Amino acid sequence: MLPRVIKTENDLGSHLFLGSRHLNMRIIIVGGGAAGATAAQFARKQDRDAEIIVFEETPYPEYSRCGLPHALSGEIPSFEDLIEFTPEWFQRNKIDLRLSTRVTEVEVHKHELKAEGKNGTIIEHFDSLIIATGAAPSVPRIEGVLMNERLRDGIFQFRGMDDAKKLKDWCGRGRRKVLVVGAGLVGLEVAEALSKSNHEVIVAEYLESALPLMIDPDMAEPLASAMANAGVKLITSAAVEQIIGAEWIEGARIKRRSDGSTERIDCDTVVLATSQKPSTSLAQRMGCKVGRGGHILVDMRCETNLKGIFAVGDCTEYKDFITGAEMPVGLGTLAVRMGEVAGKNAAGGDSHVPEGFLSARVTRIFGLEIAATGPITSSISNKANMIQTRTKGSTLSPYYPGGKDLLVKLTASADGGQILSCQIVGEKEAGLRIDIVSSFMLGGLTVGDLAKFENAYAPPVSPCVDALTVAAQAILIKLARAKPG
Amino acid sequence: MLPRVIKTENDLGSHLFLGSRHLNMRIIIVGGGAAGATAAQFARKQDRDAEIIVFEETPYPEYSRCGLPHALSGEIPSFEDLIEFTPEWFQRNKIDLRLSTRVTEVEVHKHELKAEGKNGTIIEHFDSLIIATGAAPSVPRIEGVLMNERLRDGIFQFRGMDDAKKLKDWCGRGRRKVLVVGAGLVGLEVAEALSKSNHEVIVAEYLESALPLMIDPDMAEPLASAMANAGVKLITSAAVEQIIGAEWIEGARIKRRSDGSTERIDCDTVVLATSQKPSTSLAQRMGCKVGRGGHILVDMRCETNLKGIFAVGDCTEYKDFITGAEMPVGLGTLAVRMGEVAGKNAAGGDSHVPEGFLSARVTRIFGLEIAATGPITSSISNKANMIQTRTKGSTLSPYYPGGKDLLVKLTASADGGQILSCQIVGEKEAGLRIDIVSSFMLGGLTVGDLAKFENAYAPPVSPCVDALTVAAQAILIKLARAKPG
Repeated sequence: MLPRVIKTENDLGSHLFLGSRHLNMRIIIVGGGAAGATAAQFARKQDRDAEIIVFEETPYPEYSRCGLPHALSGEIPSFEDLIEFTPEWFQRNKIDLRLSTRVTEVEVHKHELKAEGKNGTIIEHFDSLIIATGAAPSVPRIEGVLMNERLRDGIFQFRGMDDAKKLKDWCGRGRRKVLVVGAGLVGLEVAEALSKSNHEVIVAEYLESALPLMIDPDMAEPLASAMANAGVKLITSAAVEQIIGAEWIEGARIKRRSDGSTERIDCDTVVLATSQKPSTSLAQRMGCKVGRGGHILVDMRCETNLKGIFAVGDCTEYKDFITGAEMPVGLGTLAVRMGEVAGKNAAGGDSHVPEGFLSARVTRIFGLEIAATGPITSSISNKANMIQTRTKGSTLSPYYPGGKDLLVKLTASADGGQILSCQIVGEKEAGLRIDIVSSFMLGGLTVGDLAKFENAYAPPVSPCVDALTVAAQAILIKLARAKPG
Repeated sequence: MLPRVIKTENDLGSHLFLGSRHLNMRIIIVGGGAAGATAAQFARKQDRDAEIIVFEETPYPEYSRCGLPHALSGEIPSFEDLIEFTPEWFQRNKIDLRLSTRVTEVEVHKHELKAEGKNGTIIEHFDSLIIATGAAPSVPRIEGVLMNERLRDGIFQFRGMDDAKKLKDWCGRGRRKVLVVGAGLVGLEVAEALSKSNHEVIVAEYLESALPLMIDPDMAEPLASAMANAGVKLITSAAVEQIIGAEWIEGARIKRRSDGSTERIDCDTVVLATSQKPSTSLAQRMGCKVGRGGHILVDMRCETNLKGIFAVGDCTEYKDFITGAEMPVGLGTLAVRMGEVAGKNAAGGDSHVPEGFLSARVTRIFGLEIAATGPITSSISNKANMIQTRTKGSTLSPYYPGGKDLLVKLTASADGGQILSCQIVGEKEAGLRIDIVSSFMLGGLTVGDLAKFENAYAPPVSPCVDALTVAAQAILIKLARAKPG
């Protein structure tokens, strides 16, 4: 254990003058991804003198995981371009970044942790601790996926930089026939990247539509068409039961959930992109309370049930702004927002995240921008008090050339017109419009307010009556009709 | 006067059943522009049986005035493409559109008006009346502008379709050297359109910067550069004193306000784009209360001081959402929002506009998208309680190719971080970001909320830490520093 630094009297004096502590605070962050690195950044902003250590088990300083599919496709020239917080940044900010070092144990009451790295075991003291251990892809129960308890050659997961590098390397050695298991965001972004780099791609999804956790099945219809146009085959309501092939992967057996029929698909490569599970075994051993899915529970200060122990990002769960239900935090933006709050608080600040998260999300795939905020319809429990419309607007006024259709699904409460969720699909400008709806939701505004919203209008930029206005007007009519009398 | 239609007993029965009136309501709208036509549209939605008459003094049914510069430049092939509410639309909706007909007098107590059209004088009864008479460009006091009390040949205004057609026709007869007087939105959009169609253009502005009513002088700097790059000369702080030339226009004398020096500019064409004055002489004769600038005062129902008489659009003024001060309504979006409210109310509804307007505004000129919401700084009276930052963000994360800079000026109250205004300049996506800020302002959210906002993020769409987040974080730091202690 390193001795805590005792400042000279001179230093103490200046600290007392600043109203600061006599001893420097010691903050340790477990995990150097987006959440952890942002926590380090804001801990430093909060306290210029704190000692800050970040332990990261991979050899990489913080990089954009969301950018990995774009480096896989080649849009971003090199994986190293994705690094956002460089080792130089850590040095400049006097943050001690320890790469390839894994925290193995934390003794909460002793405020001590044990880590294993290149130089063996080290023990460090901390005043406050931030857990940012993220999540890991789970391996779905498919026959033939594992060999000697490891993924077979030709079978890949896709979460971290090494996963992406391995897949790119493999696919660089010839044209591949790829089966992507799971049509969530990761699965589809990988599918598009591989399709763009000239591989043949089939996507199999267990649920009835693509992006099932992001948008409703009816909103996924344009995406299914766009995938077909791009030559990517999408099979929904289908369970991948077996990977076929002795020495090499030769194909997969897929079972249609509708009628139980099976078919064989030829492929030489499989990407598993089903679910992620939170990496919280360390936290659970420490005594951190977790939810049903194993995600760490935190309060508005991003503090766990253990005082001075914070948790942020994909390893946590937090309240949904609309339903109030606990839901896994699975977005880069939320990781960063939580990192900021936990970083400040770990350094003695008093910051908090909002009462709940909207999980505003967007992607651009297969020529479509798909965005949503608030829960998908299947997550809204009180469907009796819910009114929905699906309307079409445009990015520009009809008379101005170049406008693109925007399909808008809006959900409001039947009793007061509270906006519960919105999903938008179009060729462009869906994401920023979702941000407008998110802002309305945060401010407690209603669909009535949205119908009257003064959007900034100019013919080459946006229409006078926006696609959101059209949606709000339609839902108001439906609301009026639904009223008794 | 046409007799009011008396319904048969059968009809009466069904009306009583619907809780409606015994006699059909008679709604007259004076002016068929965006505000008036929208009022007609929503009056019809409110009451399927009302008689609705629209008097329009020009020969044109409603068209997009905002689109005129784009038809002048040729981006939109024909002026007729700008027509949004066609005569067929009016027929289909059983709205009696009387073009080329001017309402000359209204007898409020008799609920009667007199109009002059092709077929002479007509008198009509009304139950409720909506004034949507718009505004007209004023003629600045410049020597040599008028000849026999009319604008000289080669001098143009730019508001309606005929103005635009005349200017296009004139400029189609040879390459012109054009002086645009006034660097407001109309002046600059015309300047760009003419510059694009290969004319030489100089813009002279009396105030110190371009778009002086839309953005602050410091935010207009990128625009001045962009104009220079496009070969359009911008002269600010300059008064056009005289138009020179006996038979033809040969030039103009301009006085620099800084040192009083004058210079002569060669030109053969002048476009006057200074200020607009509301067309409210009829309303004033009726007894409608007007503000200092002659704009009709209305309440949240868009009703004037006279019961059953509504007014909407450019002829009105209304409260600024932030300052509470009355300000002229000068935007197409607001005309349409007011038209909806007045149309419903004139037909017996009870709709209202928000407590104030943000006047959210955007344009795309000279390669820049320029957008703003809330008052410009010079209109904020309590500057002591105001904190401002000017920050730079991007439309995309740094690692993703193709991101464009966004310059963001954010103003907040020093005591609570209330968002007072925002101005954004960049190559694209400024307008939709302004809509996000407007939404925050309407919901009463603060810069603290904006700093924590979960924008929807994906590398090809938007950055994880948005340009708005950067601005909000910067202003929070400034706010913290400004606090005593």
